[in-house]
Amino acid sequence: MRIVVLAGGIGGARFLRGLKQAAPDADITVIGNTGDDIHLFGLKICPDLDTVMYTLGGGINEEQGWGRTDETFAVKSELAEYGVGPEWFGLGDRDFATHIVRTQMLGAGYPLSAVTEALCARWQPGVRLLPMSDDRVETHVAVDVDGERKAVHFQEYWVRMRASVEARAVVPVGAEQAKPAPGVLEAIGSADIVLFPPSNPVVSIGTILAVPGIREAIADAGVPVVGLSPIVGDAPVRGMADKVLAAIGVEATATAVAQHYGSGLLDGWLVDTVDAAAVPDIESAGIRARAVPLMMTDLDASAAMAREALTLAGEVRA
Amino acid sequence: MRIVVLAGGIGGARFLRGLKQAAPDADITVIGNTGDDIHLFGLKICPDLDTVMYTLGGGINEEQGWGRTDETFAVKSELAEYGVGPEWFGLGDRDFATHIVRTQMLGAGYPLSAVTEALCARWQPGVRLLPMSDDRVETHVAVDVDGERKAVHFQEYWVRMRASVEARAVVPVGAEQAKPAPGVLEAIGSADIVLFPPSNPVVSIGTILAVPGIREAIADAGVPVVGLSPIVGDAPVRGMADKVLAAIGVEATATAVAQHYGSGLLDGWLVDTVDAAAVPDIESAGIRARAVPLMMTDLDASAAMAREALTLAGEVRA
Repeated sequence: MRIVVLAGGIGGARFLRGLKQAAPDADITVIGNTGDDIHLFGLKICPDLDTVMYTLGGGINEEQGWGRTDETFAVKSELAEYGVGPEWFGLGDRDFATHIVRTQMLGAGYPLSAVTEALCARWQPGVRLLPMSDDRVETHVAVDVDGERKAVHFQEYWVRMRASVEARAVVPVGAEQAKPAPGVLEAIGSADIVLFPPSNPVVSIGTILAVPGIREAIADAGVPVVGLSPIVGDAPVRGMADKVLAAIGVEATATAVAQHYGSGLLDGWLVDTVDAAAVPDIESAGIRARAVPLMMTDLDASAAMAREALTLAGEVRA
Repeated sequence: MRIVVLAGGIGGARFLRGLKQAAPDADITVIGNTGDDIHLFGLKICPDLDTVMYTLGGGINEEQGWGRTDETFAVKSELAEYGVGPEWFGLGDRDFATHIVRTQMLGAGYPLSAVTEALCARWQPGVRLLPMSDDRVETHVAVDVDGERKAVHFQEYWVRMRASVEARAVVPVGAEQAKPAPGVLEAIGSADIVLFPPSNPVVSIGTILAVPGIREAIADAGVPVVGLSPIVGDAPVRGMADKVLAAIGVEATATAVAQHYGSGLLDGWLVDTVDAAAVPDIESAGIRARAVPLMMTDLDASAAMAREALTLAGEVRA
């Protein structure tokens, strides 16, 4: 069974760990969001790719869900002594090594997809991890600060501002000119199932779908496309998805997110049991829906969710 | 009193610390060797500039004489996990921060002299530290390996091979095309005294003198030029200066090194008391010489050496 998964960071990575347990023999290709990539300290940082890689490779800081376990912060503390920031972006020493290797390889001319493959040679995530594109895409968020509208990098909005001001618009800068990375369209074209984990529908999965060719390839693949709602009981399970959903005019409900993807793209949608009442509405929009527990409290819970997604995929295929 | 000092790494840095104690009111400009600079992990590393900066700024590892105190090695250990080397070059986490800042600034278009000034804004070394040149100069050493002559970077010869094979030639690649960094010729032109610390006469001071214009400016400055022998009792005080002296056909003696600089450049030369017998030979070559203790065992010893150098400068001026 060939499964293609579009993934953001923490939610995508934890779902993937469950999927690997639920379908140990599956051939899994992950198309990772690179819209939240950022250049800091002259280094190229790919937070979502790294979160997937570290989580599946056993190097993740389990408590916070991102960054390395047993991390130290000597480099960052020294950079601050030089007055070099930003200080709001948490980069540990072990994590720095990843960015140093990546930046060195990119500088030597390797595309991000080749760099990611090289990094994964160490981590052995048990999936094929592809960046959505080798081209630079950078998600910017328009915010009003002191009465002036300005665009900030998504990381600045998310990490520094903690999404505390309203997002007026979310723009994946460069997406329109980006090409899918080598292997992306081929993986979708030969997939048996496409899954959308409970990742952010705007800045994670939405950004991946904004790369020309990817949405079309999924819609045209003729295979079940099943997603899991990141909204449970009208609030995001983690993160601040409601803020960026509002920016694109989508309500923060499991139903609205399903309708945002649309029946042209999505065949099946899992909502949490607390949102069971939404199932008929979603189904009337042409998307098969089921209500199941959607809290990834531990690996078994994530695996159960993955099994429900695969089951729903089987139903929509039939 | 304006003093210009040509400096390599450890020996130069320790001498400078003594000089600052011996002449606390002097205006000291250090022209630092950049021939042993190296690009590793995509980062620009300037070992000699950093050794001077850390030593005078209070951040040096006193025992080893280079690198940072209280250092950790998480980044290097992670790089090794990625299979990315070289492992023979010791870079600690705190040290990495310096190279990250430097590389980022160089990438943004600042010349090395401006970067060095920015780094020194933190360290406050109490001297003006100038790289000999903003242009890339890289000292290569020709060695015979398995019957084949090949050129290796100086750091590879020195650190990895530990100078264990004969150096056939020492070539400061790029020196002929390099220009002195802004301020270098001006500092020499307005100096009252020029000092050569007991640094390596080939790969440290020799490389600085190989940048067109620097040797001429010193010879033409019309002020006392006084050096301190790095060779004591026919052996280098530290390092492996004898190996690179042999490559340029100079004996590893205090006398031969003085003659190598020559009376056209050097006015005074301090040798260690164990080499007192060499004084007449050096003086007959037209260079005023004195025998004094030249072991920098502690700060007071280094300061005493600096005072002797300043005294000798006064004598040759008179």
